[in-house]
Amino acid sequence: MQPIVQSAVNFSEGRRKEVIEDIVLTVRNTPGVSVLDTSYDYDHNRAVLTFGGAPQAVGEAAFRLTERAARLINMEQHRGGHPRMGATDVIPFIPVQGIDMTQCVELARSVGRRIGDELKIPVYLYEEAATSPERKNLANVRSGEYEGLKEFIKKDERAPDFGPQQMHPTAGAVAVGARRPLVAYNVNFDISDVKIARKIANAVREKTGGLKNVRAIGLFLQDRNQVQVSMNLVNCEETPIYRVVELIKAEAARYGAKITDTEIVGLCPQDYLLEAARYYLQLPSFSADQVTENKIAWEMSGK
Amino acid sequence: MQPIVQSAVNFSEGRRKEVIEDIVLTVRNTPGVSVLDTSYDYDHNRAVLTFGGAPQAVGEAAFRLTERAARLINMEQHRGGHPRMGATDVIPFIPVQGIDMTQCVELARSVGRRIGDELKIPVYLYEEAATSPERKNLANVRSGEYEGLKEFIKKDERAPDFGPQQMHPTAGAVAVGARRPLVAYNVNFDISDVKIARKIANAVREKTGGLKNVRAIGLFLQDRNQVQVSMNLVNCEETPIYRVVELIKAEAARYGAKITDTEIVGLCPQDYLLEAARYYLQLPSFSADQVTENKIAWEMSGK
Repeated sequence: MQPIVQSAVNFSEGRRKEVIEDIVLTVRNTPGVSVLDTSYDYDHNRAVLTFGGAPQAVGEAAFRLTERAARLINMEQHRGGHPRMGATDVIPFIPVQGIDMTQCVELARSVGRRIGDELKIPVYLYEEAATSPERKNLANVRSGEYEGLKEFIKKDERAPDFGPQQMHPTAGAVAVGARRPLVAYNVNFDISDVKIARKIANAVREKTGGLKNVRAIGLFLQDRNQVQVSMNLVNCEETPIYRVVELIKAEAARYGAKITDTEIVGLCPQDYLLEAARYYLQLPSFSADQVTENKIAWEMSGK
Repeated sequence: MQPIVQSAVNFSEGRRKEVIEDIVLTVRNTPGVSVLDTSYDYDHNRAVLTFGGAPQAVGEAAFRLTERAARLINMEQHRGGHPRMGATDVIPFIPVQGIDMTQCVELARSVGRRIGDELKIPVYLYEEAATSPERKNLANVRSGEYEGLKEFIKKDERAPDFGPQQMHPTAGAVAVGARRPLVAYNVNFDISDVKIARKIANAVREKTGGLKNVRAIGLFLQDRNQVQVSMNLVNCEETPIYRVVELIKAEAARYGAKITDTEIVGLCPQDYLLEAARYYLQLPSFSADQVTENKIAWEMSGK
């Protein structure tokens, strides 16, 4: 099986289209890498660029992107609604297939070291790649943002993992890490009372006593006159999608509410969907290499 | 999306290992083709070789296989338990991704024409590629087998679609066609009375009033002391796996029987499993290009 890694780099430009396109092109021109999605927001003044491919290629693309963004974005002039500390703000490496988290952590550390050494940008390792428990959480790493970190970085406890112990004069600092794929999952109900949606969200999410790895809010959808529980599932290996849906059904039942439909926003790894098939079809031993397309692709790549 | 076709060629050798290996190697050495599975049976004196890849490459491999088998297998000396009419007996082309049935029918006809013209072996088109309704069924096409067809082929209604209107002196005739992927699916129950398994099989299969595209038998599994409904699902686009399972649950309930587990034997196209996830998770609009691995592979192949 050919190993594939995904990245979803956040960089601090959501207004100048030509700068965004230049940075996207830098990634697109890296051999062995495919750009999967680009989105940006004027108010946040921030873009998310999703790309994937072989681990070394994805690492190379992340490095080139950081180098290019450091030339084109000046954090001294950056204003935006989203917390940020650098021109390239966050680089996560996400295992997709044929690679485990440990290897993604190694990739994050090697790319981080290179950014620190060659570009002289301070690098903080976060999530699975973090070097201390408090740095797992990106919010802690970024606390103070670009402006505040100019001073905070001098403290021992805020020293970067790689690169100089001072902010880059225009590019700031960057968080590099490894994490699991995140699934954006929405569930819609046949009711219009948002209070019930909020109760279901509370029941299902980790923060308020529900399932681990589930973040959820209740919303009212004006155009559909329906309510929704909107979720981020941050670890579908530990907490699979089917378990979330079944718990939601059980909680909705106490209000007489039923699911009308659900949606996955953006991408979802194949195995998370196979796991739903395994559960509902009671297919305990079905393996990914029984999927015809996988078998053919893996046999071919092994040639 | 890179188009992929699968084939599962049946040829008339299940005893001489060196002949089987020679024929497998012929396919393996065809550029762009991957061998997915080989199985053969002494009593049937027959092998099934499953391979896949780009349509033209799979067509080329099927042609080379037929040429090689015609040199190595003499039907005058062939004996075996399974109905057969040629050294290479059956060549199906099966759409896997990025290709529709119409294109597989075209592929079957162009490979069939080439076998007829260049190898002088009579070719019968069957299933979706058939040129008349009675030739859709392989059993009709093969009726009389190798020995009987020597005479029958002279009749107008048994004239081949391509090649000479007489059997090849050693290779006989070959059926070439297009068909959907077949899923071998078994469902096991928490009971040991095979009569109940047979009743469930009768209720679920097309032949006796059940679901279209489902072939089923009831079996007793000695080693597990359980009963099983063993099925071939011949068109999971029309009749998806989840519908079969839900009907089986409903029928089993009248006997107080429950499913303990199910199994897919061999390969299954990805979309048949995604359809189960769509049904049970109520995910109406989830598309295959939202699967991370697909998106990356398709973006890469489009480069």
